[in-house]
Amino acid sequence: MKFELLAADPASGARYGRVTTAHGAFETPAFMPVGTYGAVKSLSPNELTAAGAQIVLSNTYHLNQRPGADVVRKLGGLHRFMGWPGPILTDSGGYQVFSLAERRKVTDDGVEFRSPVDGSLCFLSPEETIRIQRDLGSDIAMVLDECIPYPSGQDIACQAVDRSIEWAARCRSVQTRHSVPDALFGPDALFGIVQGSVYEGLRERCAQALVGIGFDGYAIGGLSVGEPIERMLEVAEFTARLLPADTPRYLMGVGTPADLVRAVARGIDMFDCVMPTRNGRNGQAFTADGVLRLRGARYREDPAPIEADCGCEACAGAGSSRGFSRAFLRHCVNVNEILGLRLISLHNVTFYCRLMARMRDAIRQGAFGAFAEAFLARYEPGGGDTEEE
Amino acid sequence: MKFELLAADPASGARYGRVTTAHGAFETPAFMPVGTYGAVKSLSPNELTAAGAQIVLSNTYHLNQRPGADVVRKLGGLHRFMGWPGPILTDSGGYQVFSLAERRKVTDDGVEFRSPVDGSLCFLSPEETIRIQRDLGSDIAMVLDECIPYPSGQDIACQAVDRSIEWAARCRSVQTRHSVPDALFGPDALFGIVQGSVYEGLRERCAQALVGIGFDGYAIGGLSVGEPIERMLEVAEFTARLLPADTPRYLMGVGTPADLVRAVARGIDMFDCVMPTRNGRNGQAFTADGVLRLRGARYREDPAPIEADCGCEACAGAGSSRGFSRAFLRHCVNVNEILGLRLISLHNVTFYCRLMARMRDAIRQGAFGAFAEAFLARYEPGGGDTEEE
Repeated sequence: MKFELLAADPASGARYGRVTTAHGAFETPAFMPVGTYGAVKSLSPNELTAAGAQIVLSNTYHLNQRPGADVVRKLGGLHRFMGWPGPILTDSGGYQVFSLAERRKVTDDGVEFRSPVDGSLCFLSPEETIRIQRDLGSDIAMVLDECIPYPSGQDIACQAVDRSIEWAARCRSVQTRHSVPDALFGPDALFGIVQGSVYEGLRERCAQALVGIGFDGYAIGGLSVGEPIERMLEVAEFTARLLPADTPRYLMGVGTPADLVRAVARGIDMFDCVMPTRNGRNGQAFTADGVLRLRGARYREDPAPIEADCGCEACAGAGSSRGFSRAFLRHCVNVNEILGLRLISLHNVTFYCRLMARMRDAIRQGAFGAFAEAFLARYEPGGGDTEEE
Repeated sequence: MKFELLAADPASGARYGRVTTAHGAFETPAFMPVGTYGAVKSLSPNELTAAGAQIVLSNTYHLNQRPGADVVRKLGGLHRFMGWPGPILTDSGGYQVFSLAERRKVTDDGVEFRSPVDGSLCFLSPEETIRIQRDLGSDIAMVLDECIPYPSGQDIACQAVDRSIEWAARCRSVQTRHSVPDALFGPDALFGIVQGSVYEGLRERCAQALVGIGFDGYAIGGLSVGEPIERMLEVAEFTARLLPADTPRYLMGVGTPADLVRAVARGIDMFDCVMPTRNGRNGQAFTADGVLRLRGARYREDPAPIEADCGCEACAGAGSSRGFSRAFLRHCVNVNEILGLRLISLHNVTFYCRLMARMRDAIRQGAFGAFAEAFLARYEPGGGDTEEE
């Protein structure tokens, strides 16, 4: 994996760059649609390309439960399995395993848990997550980290940082040791994850230790777990400054369109979030003027598309068919017609990817500040991002 | 509406023809995918075109419940609402209303029922169904008929035939009277529906009365409601022979691929069925070698597409992505990933439309008998069509 830093905004932390993997390149700032089970819910790989997605994220935990990483490997790896030829980042599975609460036991060695699918006893360790991500054929793998809830006391956060550093080192060791020139069964690159909750001292210690071990990129984990947005942005900005300028910085699980703009201004290069598809399935469509809740009676006879200037199939049609009205999409949501949630999801992913493209253009043109200000003023006319659920 | 009979098989009842409507033409034998709520479940209009669909059916009852025919009319009619520019046939809503059992009351005037959506009192009459279908902007409307279950005694069937003839005459009268040159708010054409259960005398009386009134086409209703397949085919063949050669004949709600081939041989020109999409959502894929039940463990690691010689997106991919393996589709079905049921539905509609195209080619080439024999021998190697659920 290669990262090229191609432009930097003089007035903020915003950067434009390019990451090249064995399965092609993606530009940063990048948004990664989430393909939990090997598909970005309801959307085809071809639609993701049309939407402007250049990289997708897939969930190691879910794929290892079903169909199993061994099955994906036998079928030629995740790219072939899901029909997506471009770059894939996989998470470690840790976040999901830590979410199991009663069903898991954490030791220094790893996490023991019961499968929610069949009740069988499973074990996730640093070595195991790298093995699974290698079987999937991921381009960018993530280390196993200890994920703690918000709020957590400083002592809990400190222990989680210690364990996350130790596990990151074990991941790096096993990933390097087993690294082979075979591009299919990488992983090509490994990212460390900075933990430390909202404690700047812990964030600093974690970042320094990870940089000492040396990774291809660094993620900021443990945010967007319930803390106030302002605190999230402060910690992200503080942490981003601790990380090397010549590697990509990835803010995990963030966020709303406004969050993305603000986080890019603070030096973040990569994002993933289920919001475009999850909210789309609930009838929420993202627009430059904020969120449309398409279930609402006000759209009953609205002949307009979600956004008149959007080129996605929902808004502009495809082939011989024109775009779809808000009234039709509302109707589909109300009668649970899958085509509706598909079209809204497609629009939302297109909206997110186009937002990233516009930010990249603005950074290259030295106009990021003006772009961000204009975008936020239109997206949040009331000054606060309270639209999304 | 214009029907041209362009070729007839000398050795069977099979016919090749073309129906021209205000929204374009379709060839017969034709299969109409069912777009209940204004969408063929999970599929986009553009995908229907790619699948080879030339006409779709939509359900008057469902659309009138939600979003309401008035809403569809205000939005420019059903073609614009659903984004399908080609011909649309709408049913009368009678079949759904008669299925409400406890919640409806039938009189000579029409059917009174409680809306399952909001409990409000509704009334469907011959005049009302034509008004609704006109508001939808249907190209081909269907008369209101009395649908009875199978088995029903001859007296019940006789009364239903009497009422269906009376209602058909009222539909014809109101449709003709209100007919205007405005192509959007037709309906352009009206089909009568022959009832009579499995009683040939009643079928004959009903057909003669309807032909006496005069319709643009004739449907055979009251079949595929539980009677044995052989009986269904006998009654369809008997009834088709009673109908004018210069109008299309439509066998409602049929059927499996083998049913379609056998019914075409018996003089049927048009079909509708939810099987390709409903069975697709359950993980059943139609192939020339019969049905694949993709939930099955045997497909766990199967790298083959559903059908290697199929050109649909599920089998052959689109854009930069290749086709999808049976293993991937099985996985999607197992984890309820919408993309999977979408792809299987798309394949199934493509399979049905391609089957119709191959039958049309065979009739034109005077080779229908050989085609039908070869198709059935491969599709039903055991001699019986017992695969579909």
